[in-house]
Amino acid sequence: MTTKQKISARLRFSKNLREARLRREWSQEDLAEESGLHRTYVGSVERGERNISIDNMECLANAVGVELIDLLK
Amino acid sequence: MTTKQKISARLRFSKNLREARLRREWSQEDLAEESGLHRTYVGSVERGERNISIDNMECLANAVGVELIDLLK
Repeated sequence: MTTKQKISARLRFSKNLREARLRREWSQEDLAEESGLHRTYVGSVERGERNISIDNMECLANAVGVELIDLLK
Repeated sequence: MTTKQKISARLRFSKNLREARLRREWSQEDLAEESGLHRTYVGSVERGERNISIDNMECLANAVGVELIDLLK
């Protein structure tokens, strides 16, 4: 086992999702509507509070028009 | 909305995880032990049956020693 200093995948995803949304000048409500997910859910994902599933990650990546792997860098 | 022809993230992850495990010549039981997840869970992830969470994806990526984004390519 190695000591992991890097930011967790969950926090990287949260941060990158928010940045991708803001680049589109979308509110969380806009992203919710585009993705079909609930606004409060989108907010909690962006705060890193959710252990989001791969299907919902892909759904949000598609909504903001970014490859999923780019939301994990 | 665009028509998506490509394989879903879930199936890409499943396939790449299995390949990474086999490169190490590990059984699913070895991977389960290394990751701290259950053997039957690991099996169902590799069959693409699970809508796996980001924390468990990261846990499995760490176990096989591969970057998470490389399991999603």
